[in-house]
Parts: sequence; structure tokens; C-alpha cells
Amino acid sequence: MPVLVMKFGGTSVATLDRIKRAAKRVALEVAKGYNVIVIVSAMSGKTNELVGWVNETSPLYDAREYDAVVSSGENVTAGLMALTLQEMDVPARSWQGWQVPVKTTSAHSSARIEEIPTDNIMAKFGEGMKVAVVAGFQGISPEGRITTLGRGGSDTTAVAFAAAFDAERCDIYTDVDGVYTTDPRIAEKARKLDKISFEEMLELASLGAKVLQTRSVELAMRYKVKLRVLSSFEEPSDTAGTLVCDEEEIMESNVVSGIAYSRDEAKMTLQSVADRPGIAAAIFGPLSNAGVNVDMIIQNIAEEGRTDMTFSCPTDQVMRAEKALNDAKDAGELNFADLIADTNVAKISAVGIGMRSQSGVAAKMFQTLSDEGINIKVIATSEIKISVLVDRKYMELAVQSLHDAFELEKA
Amino acid sequence: MPVLVMKFGGTSVATLDRIKRAAKRVALEVAKGYNVIVIVSAMSGKTNELVGWVNETSPLYDAREYDAVVSSGENVTAGLMALTLQEMDVPARSWQGWQVPVKTTSAHSSARIEEIPTDNIMAKFGEGMKVAVVAGFQGISPEGRITTLGRGGSDTTAVAFAAAFDAERCDIYTDVDGVYTTDPRIAEKARKLDKISFEEMLELASLGAKVLQTRSVELAMRYKVKLRVLSSFEEPSDTAGTLVCDEEEIMESNVVSGIAYSRDEAKMTLQSVADRPGIAAAIFGPLSNAGVNVDMIIQNIAEEGRTDMTFSCPTDQVMRAEKALNDAKDAGELNFADLIADTNVAKISAVGIGMRSQSGVAAKMFQTLSDEGINIKVIATSEIKISVLVDRKYMELAVQSLHDAFELEKA
Repeated sequence: MPVLVMKFGGTSVATLDRIKRAAKRVALEVAKGYNVIVIVSAMSGKTNELVGWVNETSPLYDAREYDAVVSSGENVTAGLMALTLQEMDVPARSWQGWQVPVKTTSAHSSARIEEIPTDNIMAKFGEGMKVAVVAGFQGISPEGRITTLGRGGSDTTAVAFAAAFDAERCDIYTDVDGVYTTDPRIAEKARKLDKISFEEMLELASLGAKVLQTRSVELAMRYKVKLRVLSSFEEPSDTAGTLVCDEEEIMESNVVSGIAYSRDEAKMTLQSVADRPGIAAAIFGPLSNAGVNVDMIIQNIAEEGRTDMTFSCPTDQVMRAEKALNDAKDAGELNFADLIADTNVAKISAVGIGMRSQSGVAAKMFQTLSDEGINIKVIATSEIKISVLVDRKYMELAVQSLHDAFELEKA
Repeated sequence: MPVLVMKFGGTSVATLDRIKRAAKRVALEVAKGYNVIVIVSAMSGKTNELVGWVNETSPLYDAREYDAVVSSGENVTAGLMALTLQEMDVPARSWQGWQVPVKTTSAHSSARIEEIPTDNIMAKFGEGMKVAVVAGFQGISPEGRITTLGRGGSDTTAVAFAAAFDAERCDIYTDVDGVYTTDPRIAEKARKLDKISFEEMLELASLGAKVLQTRSVELAMRYKVKLRVLSSFEEPSDTAGTLVCDEEEIMESNVVSGIAYSRDEAKMTLQSVADRPGIAAAIFGPLSNAGVNVDMIIQNIAEEGRTDMTFSCPTDQVMRAEKALNDAKDAGELNFADLIADTNVAKISAVGIGMRSQSGVAAKMFQTLSDEGINIKVIATSEIKISVLVDRKYMELAVQSLHDAFELEKA
């Protein structure tokens, strides 16, 4: 029988009633003839409570104990979901990560799944069990200790199971009904996409459209797992949600598929650095060592052998970045006149696989922003994405005007 | 290095502050040179919350899923306790039941511990770890599923670890400061006992002085584990609490050590049953099959071949007992005129190993109650215990007058 993976996020299993609602969806798929693997998150709020306790107990916690504590929320939901299905006469049982076992690396709190043996669960399917409920977000290290995959890790658990069991599809149930051309709270013309390519989803995920954990999309792309994002609060339907799939499966698509934004990016400018070979390495080496995730980089035209270097990084890494650069300066490895952090910016990105074959997208984007009087501070581009930093006060206007300019309200 | 087992109940780990307080006690014992095994319960209230969810989800739950859900509370406390100890620079780590592994039977929700391998934890002690924090109440079945030991099971976990690791002592930290001659809420002259024998503790435990789980006392008696019951809310001291030990270790003792009571017993009377051989079997066979725990039994003198049969059982089993007996009557296996249940009774017991060698204890007990005008409805005796059923309204008076009569306020 074909296998289907269904993942329910924290809001979809927040109460016993919602667990029942989710279980009914699972029962529908069982009735269609699927063997179902259900991946569950912790009831919403539970993981935050546990994380809070760990942080209060030990700010620089031992990640092995963090994982042992924080993984318990998913175990509760898994058992309750199995019981709920049993009450509906659907043969089901729960698995904790170590019972499958979901074998991961030893990188506690951000472990990677290395292997998921299928024999254990397949044997139970063979005995007539219809649903395997698996606690998401967790696994077991080679040392036999509990690991977790990082926040949002249940998405990755779901995709990894879909790949391991060669599932027909991996349905991610969440509190939004799919992937939109942009955030509907900002642009009311935002339209739900029926399909989006893995590549586009990756750009959108990493740009703050937090529908899916980035790693889960990477994994789905590598193993060609068909991912569907849909709401557990809408009536079941075969066309619900957004399918994230290979671009070959998308017949027609707009040049630009979506406009993403992020408030969590800061702009850092190093003024008057020597314009010499190796200067970029002298700047970005220390930042990398300090764990700062540099995103966009621009270098101004040099005058008299000095130049300004601007880059962006997540707002919460600004202090770390400042320390790394000032330390490098104190150590004589780097020289600059001043370091200016601007956290009052927003990143706006247009994403679309159509950009590969269509020119003029960047020009249209810049013209649109210019027409609205919005100054562009930094530009970065990739094959399927153009990102700009603008003053934060223009964020909503920028998103709306770009959404209009690329006519994203039209399918 | 000698091993010490310390168990902290739910109220002793109810908040992060209390966990810290408990951890300080552990650190004191480490400073004395012990390798410590800490057994923790769930934070108080957590297990009840989980049990409530299971019952609401599935009233006739699959006990395997019940165990998977309900065991999660202890895992949280174990991780938090290990982190707290690490913050105090005490090398510690947590173990969940399956990691030790605590091997149990497959009797989910009331499993029995079959084996606790010591190599895993001893190896860590050898590497310099000072404290192994173990989640109480749980284990793993031969099928690899999580089991629990029944309510209060963490006491049993603690004693089983003390036996397996040949611990010098097993300290049970709770919210009372020891075992008393009777309930101080009822008799203000109640006195804390410094020592009590396993046999007496067993009688007191099963009679409703719920300081320790009965099974933990049985296990301690069998493996000669020195048990100390003490409060986690008092200042640490070597003489705190009550030591539960072999009677040889108790130099002198009163004839009666304590007066116990229970409100949870009901009196059932079968009127006018045929006084024939096999009648007791015809009554108590069906009750046993229905899972009714019969405690006391008396048979009145027969008149004209008919007799009344009276027995006691827990109040919450009265309906089950009535059904079993009425079914037997309907099936023609038993004949009686009427079945009367009286739930308005209380059981009062005097317990003491001195009774074995001293006569007159029963007579003194009956005389004391008679002097107070308290009518005795049922009597039952064992080697070290005399129990009576009385009207519930006399319960406090009976306890107080017996406590006075046997001079239990004096050491």
C-alpha cells in the first residue's frame, strides 16, 4: 500500500479537540487506502515553556540535557494522537525518535538525520497497523542520547520519513493555507500559489516567509519529495494548499512568483577601509569565525586607496559582528575609520525561477521602487532572486508596489 | 566510592527553585564523598495533567500509549536536575528509563522492574561523573516500549536502584518529615518515629499512611535496603526523618508503633446465606474474579442453617462487588436474602512488631474503644496488626484515644 506522510504543527495539535480534528484527516487518508506516517510537533506553547525552564536553569546549558528536556513535548502529542486514532478504530501506535530509531549526528540541538530504518514500522504496517505516529523534531545520537533537530525540525523529520519510506507525498499541516505571493497581512491582493518550485520555496523560506523550515525544503529537493503545505483549519480537499515540487511539474509560471520581506536584517558599514587585496578576507574571516551569517555585501568604489564596505546580517548578530570586527582592529589585522550599524532597514526580495530566462526583472524592480521614492541601500542578486535593503518605514509600500508591478494577483 | 540513592518526589521538584534546593542537598552528599543516584518524579501536577489528557482522549486507553505519554513528566525533571547540578559545578547527567535500561515486565501502567544493569552508570562514575539523575516511575518492556510502574512508582525505582547498586542508603525526600505514630492532623500528640521496621511500614503503607509506595517497602525489605523518609523542606541533618530498617536494628520499641486509619473502606453484609461447606468460596471466588480486594471477613454464628457474612473492601469497588455477587445469585451459584453496603465506616488499625511477644494488645484496644462508647463492627488481626471497622463519625476519637492508651507520644 502507498505511504503518505502527514505532519501536524504545534497549532494543529494545540488542544485535544484539535488533535481529534487532525486525527479525522488522517482517518480520511487511511480510508483512501494509504498507510500513513503522522509526524507531530509539541502542543503549541509547550516547547517554549520547556526552553524557558532550561534557559532559566542554565543559560549556557549542556545541549544534551536541553535536548532531553525539550524533546518531551512531542512524545506527549504522539501518544495522544495514537490514542485518538484508536478511539476512531484506526489501528495506530506511537514511536519516539529513539524507538524508530531516527539516527542523527551528535550535534545536539541542531542534529542532522543520518538514517531512518524502515523495517520496524513497515513490519507493523504488514501486521495491519494503519498509522505510525512519530514524535517529530527528535532523534538519537550514536552515543544513545536524545538529539533534537533545531526549531521547526518536525518539518525536516516529516520530509526525511517521506524520503525513507518513498512516500507518495508529504503533507505539512499548519495554520496557514499555503504559500502566498506575499504576506496577505501586508498586501491584501496576495494570492495563494497552487504550486511553487523547491528553489523558489528555499529562497522564500530563508527570507522569512516561515512556512517551512529551510532544511526540510533542501531535503525535499534532494530526494524529490512532493511537499504540500496546507491548513488544518480548512475543509479537506485534494486541491487545498500549495504543492512544493520540482520545477518541471509547474507548467506555466510568472517570472516572479513572490515578494518576500524581512525585518530581521541589519546593515553594517565599515568606513574607510584600505582597498587592498585580501581586505575582504580580513573582514569576513573574523565574522565567519564569530558565527555571523553575512547575507549581502557591497563594496563602494575606492577613492585614494580607501573604500567603504557594507554588508547585512541578522539583527540579533549585530553585537557579535561589532565585537569580531573591533577585536580584529585591535589585533592590527584590520583597519577602518568607523563601524556603523543600521538596524532600521528591511530586506525586500523578488523571487522567481522565471528570472533565469527573462531579463529586465531587476530593472523593473528598481524603477518601481524609484517611482515610489524609495531609496535602495544595498542590492544583492542570485539566479532566481533580487534582494534590496530599504528604510524600514518603506517596507510595506515596497512590498505592495512590487506585488502590483509584477501583477502577482493574477495567476 | 559508596553509592547513595536520593529520591525527590513531585512537591520537592515542583518549581525551578525547589529543584535548586534539592540539588543543593545532592551537592552536600557529593561533598561527603558519595557517588549519588538521584531519582526524580515529575513536577507536581504534571502527571495529573497528562493522565487527565489521556482519560479525556480515550477512557479505555491503550496502556502502552498511556505509559508513553505519562512518563514524559519525569524526563523533564531529570534533565532540569542535571542542568542545575552542572550549574553548581557538580558533574551530572540524566538518564531516561530506557537509557539505563530499567528492564521491566510488559504489564503497562503497573510494570515490575526485572533488572537494572549497572555497567552504564558505573562506567560514568568511573569517568568522574558524580551524579546520575534518573527519571523515576518508568522503564522499558522486552518489546522496547516504555512502561510505567504505577502511581508512586518513583519510590520503587529508588529502592530498586539502591538494591542494584548496593547503595549505602536510599533517602526518600518528600513533603512530610518522616513517619508518625499517627496522622498529626488528627492527633496533635503524634510523634515522629526515628526508626520503624519494614514490616510495620508495610502495614502502615497499605493502611493509608501514604508516605511510601507499598511495593517500594516490600522491595526494600527483600533486599535489605536502608530507607530513610525525610522532608526536602527542612534543614539537612544526619538525624532527620525516619529510618525504615530491619527490626534487628531497632533496639527498643513500643508494643504498638502507630495507629493508622482509612476512610476508603466499605462494609458489605450478605444477609441470610446458607451455612454450608463451600459457601465462603462461592462468595469470595466471584469477588476475586471481579478484581475486588477483600480485606476483613467475619461470619456470624449460624441460626437454623443460615448465617450473615460480612466483609470489607475499598469504597470504590463496592459497585463491582455488588455486581459480582448479584450475578452469582442470578446464576444460581449463591443464595442470600439481601446485600447491604455501608460506606459510612472507617478502619482503625494498631500496628507494632512488639505485638508478637506481648499479649493483651487487642484487649486493651477493644476496652479503650468501649470506654469511649465506640461500637466495633468488624475485627481483623494479623501478627503485627489489629484492625477494626467503626462508624466513620468516631474515626478521630478512636485514633486519639488509642494513641493515648498506648502512650505513643512517649518514645
